[in-house]
Amino acid sequence: MTVLRAVRLDEQDRLIIIDQTKLPGELVFVELRDKTGLIDAIARLKVRGAPAIGIAAAYGVFVLARSYSGLARLEFLEALRADIAQIRHVRPTAINLAWALARMEEMLRQHEHEQPRQILPWLRREAQAIFDEDAAICRAIAAHGAPLIRDGMGVLTHCNAGWLATSELGTALAPIYAAQEQGKKFRVYCDETRPLLQGARLTAYELMAAQVETILLCDNMAASLMAAAQVDIVFVGADRVAANGDVANKIGTLSLAINAAHFGIPFYVCAPSSTLDQSAPTGAQIQIEQRDALEITEMWYKERMAPAGVGVYNAAFDVTPRELITGLITEAGIKYF
Amino acid sequence: MTVLRAVRLDEQDRLIIIDQTKLPGELVFVELRDKTGLIDAIARLKVRGAPAIGIAAAYGVFVLARSYSGLARLEFLEALRADIAQIRHVRPTAINLAWALARMEEMLRQHEHEQPRQILPWLRREAQAIFDEDAAICRAIAAHGAPLIRDGMGVLTHCNAGWLATSELGTALAPIYAAQEQGKKFRVYCDETRPLLQGARLTAYELMAAQVETILLCDNMAASLMAAAQVDIVFVGADRVAANGDVANKIGTLSLAINAAHFGIPFYVCAPSSTLDQSAPTGAQIQIEQRDALEITEMWYKERMAPAGVGVYNAAFDVTPRELITGLITEAGIKYF
Repeated sequence: MTVLRAVRLDEQDRLIIIDQTKLPGELVFVELRDKTGLIDAIARLKVRGAPAIGIAAAYGVFVLARSYSGLARLEFLEALRADIAQIRHVRPTAINLAWALARMEEMLRQHEHEQPRQILPWLRREAQAIFDEDAAICRAIAAHGAPLIRDGMGVLTHCNAGWLATSELGTALAPIYAAQEQGKKFRVYCDETRPLLQGARLTAYELMAAQVETILLCDNMAASLMAAAQVDIVFVGADRVAANGDVANKIGTLSLAINAAHFGIPFYVCAPSSTLDQSAPTGAQIQIEQRDALEITEMWYKERMAPAGVGVYNAAFDVTPRELITGLITEAGIKYF
Repeated sequence: MTVLRAVRLDEQDRLIIIDQTKLPGELVFVELRDKTGLIDAIARLKVRGAPAIGIAAAYGVFVLARSYSGLARLEFLEALRADIAQIRHVRPTAINLAWALARMEEMLRQHEHEQPRQILPWLRREAQAIFDEDAAICRAIAAHGAPLIRDGMGVLTHCNAGWLATSELGTALAPIYAAQEQGKKFRVYCDETRPLLQGARLTAYELMAAQVETILLCDNMAASLMAAAQVDIVFVGADRVAANGDVANKIGTLSLAINAAHFGIPFYVCAPSSTLDQSAPTGAQIQIEQRDALEITEMWYKERMAPAGVGVYNAAFDVTPRELITGLITEAGIKYF
């Protein structure tokens, strides 16, 4: 099973990412050497998925620190802290970005009286810890979820919550990879996920690289497959989970959950417990990002596909009430609602 | 209100269609002169929508008959019947295609002992009758459905069942056009309808031409709008209605109907009673066309958007059970289930 790493330090401690904007056509590895490269990669979605962004930023702070390590101590601290402040604002809504940078800043603060070359190993260690903790979470989700997949099943997923979005394995795709490693025979149906096509471009790519039998479909076709008894279980990720268990995830998740409930198909949400937002009592308190109309009318296309001047509704996420969710799979286990 | 004709005989009895594959960028009229052109137009969806396909096929039989009218009687009959048999199989789910061709064949049979040039006017008359009957049906559906639309409503539709798909006015869009003519103020949400984007390209084009307030969305976003109480009523068309009331329509209709039922939103199917297929006791007996994978992976795009070799599920239609349908609006009135 081929599982690559979307973000990693190589054997010479170079920060290497897969440029996800080139997928699925080309698998391109890019080294991020400086602040400009790092900011560009995060801003232009070369690296995407909340955990992967956090990991890239953490490794990035180490790489920047190394490039400043010839400076005197105070200049070193000033330069690095200015970079961190700048990187934090590249994707203001990505919680993991601010969270990973805060951890790197705290490590820097604890060692700020040491010389730059002595600080470097501490920064490297913290960045690696962020990676390793995420990897452990993914492996735990895989272990909890894999027993739900049995031979002959049709598994459906939406958007991309796989190794491209995390340290390794992913969240929604982690049980699938674990079941594949266990030699189970099953098929994965993969929603293309309009308008950004993360399912077609990224999830289908990941699954095929891992030799999983993969069938791509348009989002509006899932109900037809369910009616034909081709879907036995659904796994999706989560961008945020409210205190009551309501789940904000990629637009289209709610429709899938309603369809799954209609046909009596188990519907599981896979997410690190850090996704739980205690400040939101229910899904109604989760703010939903509205994105640019051009993503629907023009993006990817040879020409504009809708009449000029048409109004557009482009919500990036929707909220699935916990009543429609069979279980929430975190690193701690499966919570059934 | 601007309403064009998708299929018509012009003043010189030339068969002229709007090439719907060029919309919304360009309004291109094409003449269909021979069997190859007619089959290509139907297969490649230059003309689409069950009633419009039936009308095009009927006019097409007249045009083909005229081109064969120099042949001896038996060769004329043989050539025309062979063409009809071939055209019938181009789109198997579109019942109007088989139905219109059967009417033309019956007219041919009734006059088969006459000379080809004497048969022509009968064929022209039958094709025109098919057009005129459809226009009367659309006007009746408009009259029955318009009272369901009230000021301030959000109306949702899927795919294209407007004047581009019929003789004029359409089926699902007919009540909308009638309500607009009556001066009602409402908004229409228009599913883009993957993979062929009939909603984005055609329905949004039609509605905006008629000055209807139009909001385009991806198919997977309808549930999010319903959850936000923005959708008050749904109108869709039908490609085939089984004897028990199950409806085969554009892929995505089933998911919409399940979502509408979940949120308690009235869901109406608008179709001529000729769409009723007594030979199919339930939706399970309706054959569903599977279309080319490239429609999902490549069509419209600058480059391929899914990995090479990925499996693809591309059902063109799905079946909505009558339990999910509030009412079926035909030229005879509204049948509530």
